[in-house]
Amino acid sequence: MRPSGRKLDEMRAVSIETGFTKHAEGSALIKMGDTHVLCTATIEDRVPPFIKGSGLGWVTAEYGMLPRATNTRMRREAALGKQGGRTVEIQRLIGRALRAGVDRSALGERQITVDCDVLQADGGTRCASITGGWIALRLAVNKLMKAGDVVSDPLVDPVAAVSCGIYAGQPLLDLDYPEDSEAGVDGNFIMTGSGKLIEIQMSAEGSTYTRDQMNQLMDLAEKGVGELAAIQKSVTA
Amino acid sequence: MRPSGRKLDEMRAVSIETGFTKHAEGSALIKMGDTHVLCTATIEDRVPPFIKGSGLGWVTAEYGMLPRATNTRMRREAALGKQGGRTVEIQRLIGRALRAGVDRSALGERQITVDCDVLQADGGTRCASITGGWIALRLAVNKLMKAGDVVSDPLVDPVAAVSCGIYAGQPLLDLDYPEDSEAGVDGNFIMTGSGKLIEIQMSAEGSTYTRDQMNQLMDLAEKGVGELAAIQKSVTA
Amino acid sequence: MRPSGRKLDEMRAVSIETGFTKHAEGSALIKMGDTHVLCTATIEDRVPPFIKGSGLGWVTAEYGMLPRATNTRMRREAALGKQGGRTVEIQRLIGRALRAGVDRSALGERQITVDCDVLQADGGTRCASITGGWIALRLAVNKLMKAGDVVSDPLVDPVAAVSCGIYAGQPLLDLDYPEDSEAGVDGNFIMTGSGKLIEIQMSAEGSTYTRDQMNQLMDLAEKGVGELAAIQKSVTA
Amino acid sequence: MRPSGRKLDEMRAVSIETGFTKHAEGSALIKMGDTHVLCTATIEDRVPPFIKGSGLGWVTAEYGMLPRATNTRMRREAALGKQGGRTVEIQRLIGRALRAGVDRSALGERQITVDCDVLQADGGTRCASITGGWIALRLAVNKLMKAGDVVSDPLVDPVAAVSCGIYAGQPLLDLDYPEDSEAGVDGNFIMTGSGKLIEIQMSAEGSTYTRDQMNQLMDLAEKGVGELAAIQKSVTA
Amino acid sequence: MRPSGRKLDEMRAVSIETGFTKHAEGSALIKMGDTHVLCTATIEDRVPPFIKGSGLGWVTAEYGMLPRATNTRMRREAALGKQGGRTVEIQRLIGRALRAGVDRSALGERQITVDCDVLQADGGTRCASITGGWIALRLAVNKLMKAGDVVSDPLVDPVAAVSCGIYAGQPLLDLDYPEDSEAGVDGNFIMTGSGKLIEIQMSAEGSTYTRDQMNQLMDLAEKGVGELAAIQKSVTA
Amino acid sequence: MRPSGRKLDEMRAVSIETGFTKHAEGSALIKMGDTHVLCTATIEDRVPPFIKGSGLGWVTAEYGMLPRATNTRMRREAALGKQGGRTVEIQRLIGRALRAGVDRSALGERQITVDCDVLQADGGTRCASITGGWIALRLAVNKLMKAGDVVSDPLVDPVAAVSCGIYAGQPLLDLDYPEDSEAGVDGNFIMTGSGKLIEIQMSAEGSTYTRDQMNQLMDLAEKGVGELAAIQKSVTA
Repeated sequence: MRPSGRKLDEMRAVSIETGFTKHAEGSALIKMGDTHVLCTATIEDRVPPFIKGSGLGWVTAEYGMLPRATNTRMRREAALGKQGGRTVEIQRLIGRALRAGVDRSALGERQITVDCDVLQADGGTRCASITGGWIALRLAVNKLMKAGDVVSDPLVDPVAAVSCGIYAGQPLLDLDYPEDSEAGVDGNFIMTGSGKLIEIQMSAEGSTYTRDQMNQLMDLAEKGVGELAAIQKSVTA
Repeated sequence: MRPSGRKLDEMRAVSIETGFTKHAEGSALIKMGDTHVLCTATIEDRVPPFIKGSGLGWVTAEYGMLPRATNTRMRREAALGKQGGRTVEIQRLIGRALRAGVDRSALGERQITVDCDVLQADGGTRCASITGGWIALRLAVNKLMKAGDVVSDPLVDPVAAVSCGIYAGQPLLDLDYPEDSEAGVDGNFIMTGSGKLIEIQMSAEGSTYTRDQMNQLMDLAEKGVGELAAIQKSVTA
Repeated sequence: MRPSGRKLDEMRAVSIETGFTKHAEGSALIKMGDTHVLCTATIEDRVPPFIKGSGLGWVTAEYGMLPRATNTRMRREAALGKQGGRTVEIQRLIGRALRAGVDRSALGERQITVDCDVLQADGGTRCASITGGWIALRLAVNKLMKAGDVVSDPLVDPVAAVSCGIYAGQPLLDLDYPEDSEAGVDGNFIMTGSGKLIEIQMSAEGSTYTRDQMNQLMDLAEKGVGELAAIQKSVTA
Repeated sequence: MRPSGRKLDEMRAVSIETGFTKHAEGSALIKMGDTHVLCTATIEDRVPPFIKGSGLGWVTAEYGMLPRATNTRMRREAALGKQGGRTVEIQRLIGRALRAGVDRSALGERQITVDCDVLQADGGTRCASITGGWIALRLAVNKLMKAGDVVSDPLVDPVAAVSCGIYAGQPLLDLDYPEDSEAGVDGNFIMTGSGKLIEIQMSAEGSTYTRDQMNQLMDLAEKGVGELAAIQKSVTA
Repeated sequence: MRPSGRKLDEMRAVSIETGFTKHAEGSALIKMGDTHVLCTATIEDRVPPFIKGSGLGWVTAEYGMLPRATNTRMRREAALGKQGGRTVEIQRLIGRALRAGVDRSALGERQITVDCDVLQADGGTRCASITGGWIALRLAVNKLMKAGDVVSDPLVDPVAAVSCGIYAGQPLLDLDYPEDSEAGVDGNFIMTGSGKLIEIQMSAEGSTYTRDQMNQLMDLAEKGVGELAAIQKSVTA
Repeated sequence: MRPSGRKLDEMRAVSIETGFTKHAEGSALIKMGDTHVLCTATIEDRVPPFIKGSGLGWVTAEYGMLPRATNTRMRREAALGKQGGRTVEIQRLIGRALRAGVDRSALGERQITVDCDVLQADGGTRCASITGGWIALRLAVNKLMKAGDVVSDPLVDPVAAVSCGIYAGQPLLDLDYPEDSEAGVDGNFIMTGSGKLIEIQMSAEGSTYTRDQMNQLMDLAEKGVGELAAIQKSVTA
């Protein structure tokens, strides 16, 4: 039995409120159980220097946590004067993940920045950021298409992510914080709605794992991402 | 007529959701019209070095804005590597304002940090932060009193704040962003529920004003803070 | 009786040495008792991006304290790698205050930067910076007018500032450091020579005050600023 | 045919010079073809605060690149004033990877810092850093065991890493820079000498991949890590 | 003929005002012609960690320039967020120079920090800082000796510095800014009042020089430092 | 007898490996005994703003030390977020020294950046950096001349540097770390192969020296630089 009382392959309750803020071209508050992330997508008519004039667009992401999103208060990164290593790693991951699902030529020479800010954390914030970030991105692109600025849909297949891990010898889907902090092995699995792989990160803190275990987690992840992609479609239809 | 259609002495609709996040000892999402600020209060058993051993407590505040809280995206302060001048000024104001309403001896040697993070901005974020921050503080202190850690209530009188300004020659209560950006004179008025003054900041951008005008704005502010204090009491009762 | 032996409404001796440094377009060393601030004004043929092409000028300010301007040595901000919150807050105030007295259209598209560096501190450094900074600004503008670069005088009314506070229940004009550190309530009052208000900041550290007390301090401030404006005129005539 | 002329499952020539610097407790210059990384291990009698008193040791890593390790000169991170996102991500990976192969209880309450500095880069620097870093770590631990400071060997199984990717539809072992920059999918595979998995990171830049492709790369990686582990053993015997 | 009209071996007029600020244990405003530097010495009952418990004292220095000390305004280092390379180099030089004239054992375990802030610059600011800094140091040590905290005088021989250079083929003493910017070779010569050498820095920007030329400049420097040491003694007697 | 067993005027064994890295236009690993510095020269078709359009070239340098180049590990400057004062001082010296030997007009409007990274330190790293840096610069310029981009040789006379000091009353050539840390007086002497002086820095830590002693060290330095220049010529012929 897992601490949360969920079945091994059972995700937390997912709730998504689109349009949570009014200024952003796309926004969503995603709740994976007690993990709540506010995702916004901003469209700008500029691209990074290295693709200027290429006709290609760019999607990038930034990630943050409110100081008291966690059980004990963390120091505010803006006050510390720099983003920590974990933050940098996560926002690079979110950006790569979302770009994998974008036809940058169809998007055209513009940039969309997806901000993922964790209002409350209970494990799996990077996966929730990717899943919710894709929704914000989808809504922003819808606006571009409605306005006729983009003709061919650059988002052909939803991108979603879920964490899985091995806890007390059992493979679990969608770890919450108590499960995650006890899991010897865990991974983040980023896939498309149609089951293609985008990025797998699977690591063992002070331990190792086998290919068999890896395959068990991948099976769980495919189930979870399938469910998430269905939700993504329903809220952005 | 003001752009918002409100009467000269009419505040925006105020809504407060206490307990918006689960980890903080006190939390509230305050909405003043389209200005939404998430306020959390964190209790820690330590005080700044300069009062160690004094038996007195400390209350401090930090302020932030999500990058897309505003109409166009602002760069993330954590990524820029420092808090801007406006941020620093505001969080110092919030801290001073809240401390003015605290009996630091009754609080005892502990620190409460109030984080005010703007999820959506439409003018008056510093005033909303003070009003909402006091609610988070009140809830955190309630917890201390319930646990018997604090015996005598250190918060005798609520602290709230409202902005007023002169727009097209008329004194207005509770400026929203379009009003604020056109007002030649504006001020932030921080008072207690019983009408005592804590801090007045009233300035004219590229202009001047008279004592008469100042008194008109103070009259409006007294009305506004009275209404806010009533709301504060009702949601923390 | 106040610690300084001055009467309640008596300012410290004011002395101003214009032309204290040779490179700046305007400069003055202002002494308010033992508070000594070196103010310089620099004219540059450029403006901030947000007003480029508008035909309007800009006035801005920076503030600093030498490490041993105070009773105990403070760490040098350049060595610490950032300006503290108090510094940022003060220099923004000085800039706003001076701009309120400038006809930016008459100034034309150029920037004047006023640097206020405290050589010795004994309370009231921000007010001395505004009063002395206006003198440096006046001298620099005189140079522009003499050269025919500016035709219509952009500085119609002097800007000066003084602090007042309530000490042992009595309203005092122009607090020195020992008075300031004991005052429960104090304020900075920035006005023009003709008595118009530019900015009022009045706060109570860990306390509150009444509108009556506020009015008493404003009466004192009007007296003080009147005297300062007369001195400003005499040294820049 | 791959650009390098190597067979699909052929690694670059590996050369390792142990004791490359004299001060470090362990050091090695590892060359994977034209990728050259200097790895040093430093033993210190202190541990991070969060494990003080636990009896457990700690292994951490830092990573850097000389400015002209690459084809065009990159700006020096020390001069820029911060480590880039890529650097932070890589050094966290190296630390995690090495810790997975350490019995921290056997190591005892001391810290070993592994510095990996790229003198010349041609793809795969993070994998070379892990493989070479383990050698430096092994040599440092040997010194501790020889001195009797550590009794039971905390390094039971070598840790090594190799990158694999899909290039022109073919799975390749040990990508060099030209191959890496053209590969649509690539991954870093960190394993122990006995074939257990420590961390898999496999991503598609602007693309996706299948589980079949993932398994092909894992097969290649097992071959590569096996060869590297044999070399690690031979040079540290 | 030199631009200044001075003779080849003629220093600028030197004026020194001791006690220029009231808080510092020692202070002096030194004027070498139009170069004006405010020097203060601060005594603290602490030493850097590396000499704690050694019974030895420490003397260190910091250097700064007000933004408009120069002909065109330089950006404020505190606002830029770091001290420039030139600043760092100069303050390290001042500290080394002053320490060379201190018997640190006689000083006892305390630190004296000498702050040298350039109010107006016209060449030779580092030399003026050393000469003036020694005066501030002397006055602070006098205070320690008068109070009986230091018994044996730790400052046996004054430390002073002067710049010399080759301008239009001629060796010149005490370069002002116009001379310095045209000199192909220049040096800073730091000596004691009795003619012993402390530090020589002599460099050629884009050029070279001979031992003969070096000796000519050293002869001039000995003359200049002798005159400065006499002044130092007279103002601190 | 010196600790190293060398004669008073005997340099350490010098070894130079040119072409140590493949990407840089010029590179050399210089070993002065146990001091090992990797020097690379990078050619770029841009110059600093202050000489744009002048037709002149620029040579600049950066310096770094690997964290474990020294006996105890130093913190990585990139992780600390800034270059230390010593680093800044040294890289400015290297740049000045190399520029003194360059005909910037013959070089033409391009910049060469010389990076000097200390892989292992045993005293004299700045001198080794200058000597080795000149070799990297020479090789890079050779490439420009071979390609016909530069016609007239801008490097007419080699630049080399050596440290000398007074140890136990004896003048020594080429101090290693144990000698350097005990020497009361030491200096860095930068000269051209034909014996012209570029920069002399000679200082006494907590002590003084005489002109006679200075001349003894200069004699030693001339001998040392002569030998280094011969080596420089032989390896770049």
